[in-house]
Amino acid sequence: MTETKTDKFTLINELARRRGFFWQAYEIYGGTAGFVTYGPLGTRLKQNIEKKLRDLFVNKLGIIEIESSIITPGKVFEASGHVGHFKEPMVECSKCNKRFRADHLLEEYARISAAEAEKMSLLEIKEAIKKNAITCPDCGGSFNEPQQFLTMFVTTIGPYSGATGYGRPEAAQGIFVEFNRLYTIARERLPFGVLQIGHALRNEISPRQGLIRLREFTIADLEFFFDPEEPNCHLLKDVENDILPILTAEKRLKGSEEILNITVKDALKQKLISSEWQAFFMAIAKKLLIDLGVPSNKQRFIEKLPWEKAHYSTQSFDQEVLVDRWGWIEVSGHAYRTDYDLKNHMEASGVDLRVYKEYAKPIEEEQLVVKPIMAKLGPVFKAESAKVAELLASVPAEEVMAALEKNGFYQIQNYKILPEHVSISRQKTIVRGKRFIPHVVEPSFGCDRLFYVALEYAYHAKDDRVILRFPRSISPIQVGVYPLVSKDGLVEKAEAVYKLLVMEGFSAEFDDTGSIGRRYARADEAGIQLGITIDYDTLNDDTVTVRDRDSWQQVRASIKDLPELLRRYFMGKINFHELGTLIQNK
Amino acid sequence: MTETKTDKFTLINELARRRGFFWQAYEIYGGTAGFVTYGPLGTRLKQNIEKKLRDLFVNKLGIIEIESSIITPGKVFEASGHVGHFKEPMVECSKCNKRFRADHLLEEYARISAAEAEKMSLLEIKEAIKKNAITCPDCGGSFNEPQQFLTMFVTTIGPYSGATGYGRPEAAQGIFVEFNRLYTIARERLPFGVLQIGHALRNEISPRQGLIRLREFTIADLEFFFDPEEPNCHLLKDVENDILPILTAEKRLKGSEEILNITVKDALKQKLISSEWQAFFMAIAKKLLIDLGVPSNKQRFIEKLPWEKAHYSTQSFDQEVLVDRWGWIEVSGHAYRTDYDLKNHMEASGVDLRVYKEYAKPIEEEQLVVKPIMAKLGPVFKAESAKVAELLASVPAEEVMAALEKNGFYQIQNYKILPEHVSISRQKTIVRGKRFIPHVVEPSFGCDRLFYVALEYAYHAKDDRVILRFPRSISPIQVGVYPLVSKDGLVEKAEAVYKLLVMEGFSAEFDDTGSIGRRYARADEAGIQLGITIDYDTLNDDTVTVRDRDSWQQVRASIKDLPELLRRYFMGKINFHELGTLIQNK
Repeated sequence: MTETKTDKFTLINELARRRGFFWQAYEIYGGTAGFVTYGPLGTRLKQNIEKKLRDLFVNKLGIIEIESSIITPGKVFEASGHVGHFKEPMVECSKCNKRFRADHLLEEYARISAAEAEKMSLLEIKEAIKKNAITCPDCGGSFNEPQQFLTMFVTTIGPYSGATGYGRPEAAQGIFVEFNRLYTIARERLPFGVLQIGHALRNEISPRQGLIRLREFTIADLEFFFDPEEPNCHLLKDVENDILPILTAEKRLKGSEEILNITVKDALKQKLISSEWQAFFMAIAKKLLIDLGVPSNKQRFIEKLPWEKAHYSTQSFDQEVLVDRWGWIEVSGHAYRTDYDLKNHMEASGVDLRVYKEYAKPIEEEQLVVKPIMAKLGPVFKAESAKVAELLASVPAEEVMAALEKNGFYQIQNYKILPEHVSISRQKTIVRGKRFIPHVVEPSFGCDRLFYVALEYAYHAKDDRVILRFPRSISPIQVGVYPLVSKDGLVEKAEAVYKLLVMEGFSAEFDDTGSIGRRYARADEAGIQLGITIDYDTLNDDTVTVRDRDSWQQVRASIKDLPELLRRYFMGKINFHELGTLIQNK
Repeated sequence: MTETKTDKFTLINELARRRGFFWQAYEIYGGTAGFVTYGPLGTRLKQNIEKKLRDLFVNKLGIIEIESSIITPGKVFEASGHVGHFKEPMVECSKCNKRFRADHLLEEYARISAAEAEKMSLLEIKEAIKKNAITCPDCGGSFNEPQQFLTMFVTTIGPYSGATGYGRPEAAQGIFVEFNRLYTIARERLPFGVLQIGHALRNEISPRQGLIRLREFTIADLEFFFDPEEPNCHLLKDVENDILPILTAEKRLKGSEEILNITVKDALKQKLISSEWQAFFMAIAKKLLIDLGVPSNKQRFIEKLPWEKAHYSTQSFDQEVLVDRWGWIEVSGHAYRTDYDLKNHMEASGVDLRVYKEYAKPIEEEQLVVKPIMAKLGPVFKAESAKVAELLASVPAEEVMAALEKNGFYQIQNYKILPEHVSISRQKTIVRGKRFIPHVVEPSFGCDRLFYVALEYAYHAKDDRVILRFPRSISPIQVGVYPLVSKDGLVEKAEAVYKLLVMEGFSAEFDDTGSIGRRYARADEAGIQLGITIDYDTLNDDTVTVRDRDSWQQVRASIKDLPELLRRYFMGKINFHELGTLIQNK
């Protein structure tokens, strides 16, 4: 509120509060850092962005979507490695007890880069704080020992005190734990992708930067499963000549920020990106951001350095967008998660998460086979001999043979197996296929950040007025309907047009307050794509004026044609001038 | 899984698991009670139902929508009364320590109705358990003292151990706390409504009944604000002759289950419903359920008894739907929350949440006025006399006069005001308006329950096959596209049709596996509304067969007409036979 520099971040936050895009939540209780409330315009814009993701991935690319829970049993995030790794270094002021993220303090007060700070140990952090004489920004007190803070929200599920639950920090695990069922639904065919869009929680130590770093946010995680032995992307041809602006890890290690503009094809050929599917989704993500209004030259893909990557990833890129206040900010992450998650859940749950692949040609393999000799088992184990035979079949033959050779017997549960109880032989077997864990590439979008960059790139000032020039597919309201004046039946006529458009499925707003100029200004500021004005001519010939938010040009169209024209316009099939006859400025 | 009675609940849960509508979450870790995962078909169906709510309330009725956070600072639910009231009676087995909801045990093992159990004290519960000799259903152990269990999920926000946060059990509070901002956005006009659809959390003691009682669920809360002095609903005429099936509290108290079918108009006239807006939304809710496939005679509105009502409500109705296994289940609640929530938040936060209303005619009122006499204050309070005057203006004149009369002085902060310091008089003032707290009626829908009843009422068996006959506006997939056989270029042609429909914005599925009959059967079971089959004739004349899921009738239509025809069909403007030429069964 007291900021003097009116950069776009400040202007947008002010506009967002005033017009109801979003604001800090729980203001009447002093506000709670890291939580926002989306108002009416913001909710529509956010839903339009999420609709765009669904349209792109679910409708066009045939990826399936699920919805799972935010509260997640502890076992899931223990297995996934989050309980062990999802931590941030924290320091506490010894005087006022306020807590801060240590790496943020080092960035701010010791000019240590985020990349550098991220790889420091607690001891190194402690020394850096001491060396740079960093004290509490609030009270000037000195800091206690740095410690790791688990940045997941913790709760208890049900009335049993032992059942720990976490607020999910990502939607991905809800997909991995359901892999078997999803694979069945995908008719047991690889590759296939699963999307989940929903709220996620990170208990940030000191959230800041408005929508950029929230404790509760909306994530869109897409887990794409493929056979690592058949890693080729059959859709690559659609994007292979697209340019990706990449800042490689190699360049970054040399201290360079130079962006390499390279085609998808060449990035793969030069092994800058290790997975074809990852490259494919990076190209799609770039297109998506262009569709949201962020031009290509304001985007880059920055490769994460080894110590910056999430614990599950072998190669990661962050898609970043240049914004006015904060420089480059991440809007999506592209991680090659390999078989990390499925393997961990398989081990932790004891449930087989592998898929079966039939070989093109069956393979003949020699296998060691242990066969119980029932005539020998019977006299020794009596009624239990069938059970013993079954137990023997469940253990690897190699293990039985090794034990017999080494110890002269093999112990299984309470039963002691002697060499004469079994026959061991090598047999040729026809093996028709094998079981394996699929690999995963993951594009993961932060919807609140997509929202923020869409808003910032839509923000334009013209003649001292603000116009939000959203791409027409995400404009929060498609049409405003305005009676030119509030008399002579124009209001009733305008209401009928408004009702018609609503019934035809358009998002519309009716406004009859103030001069028409003021209403246009208000609409421009809300990013309403088109304005439809009902005037005296409308009463005679049933035509209306359609006004373009961006060019302020106007065309004249017939009411009866409007639904079909507007439908084609919002599907991107026709442009503004095709909506009617251009009205020349007087 | 081992249930023998194949009622619809069992059949639907089995189908839902197999076809990917929903299933218990975290199965590989043994499943977590009260959490489900929606699979691809379920996610689409659920989104379509939510879209229907938005279409109805936001688009058609002009209600605004917001999105706030699930994790909520403790103060909010302290002020709202949830921390005090959102509890359930619980008993713990003294032997196995398993915990149960006491009222559920009484219902199940002592045939005490839910209504009766709900009003029992802990002592009464204890005695009823003893009297009916109820023991632990799991191990037969005896129960410890009943206790109240807070059924909100508790967590800590940020690294400060004191900052309690709760998982919201309703989306309503996210609206109330932002009232001032929302009122501004609504241009300071009453009435207006605010909708929020999102996940909510209730830490149920022993969740059961699949989708009916979840720990994490989706709620759609609509808070409708109006002036209690102008309680008339201007939209009432649209619904006044609609029939509401009501089971009144009066009937229930007499042990009757008799449903009164009464028009909205008469229900209001007879004061069965105390608020016009509440009656309006009940009528809308009934229509909504009909649109979701639940006929009128399978719905009822049951008035809550005094001890059943939520702590914030003066009159409540539950909209219930009759389902096969569970009898009548609640799908929406209609509460008249009055000014309860805003008043509590106003008191707890100290922020004025009243709105200002200008009187039609200004009122002349006689008011007591205390005026500081600066000439007397000056010599006494010197530089502080201006401050003293300001302080005096901030307290009620009645209070000052009473103190002066009683004690001979008035103490304000450190300042002692004597009678000679002020002049007190009665003055006539023109009062132009007043400030007041709006009243609220709330329709609140459980989206998972809407989902469940839509599924149950869509469920039909025909010739040993399952058909999900969803209303066309919520069918999870609109069209299936099928090549009749997988050769002679039919697959390529079908893919082109599929692509065309996807690009035109339809939700479509392509299927070329198995016989056409098997594919139709699979599609019927998934509730796919229409099947489009590409056959040899298609290659000659570019026409396709369109098959209706419900009647199995087929029409022949031209590919180029499909997008427009289907659009009109799914908007409900034309019926199936208008899609093309009927093909007579051979």
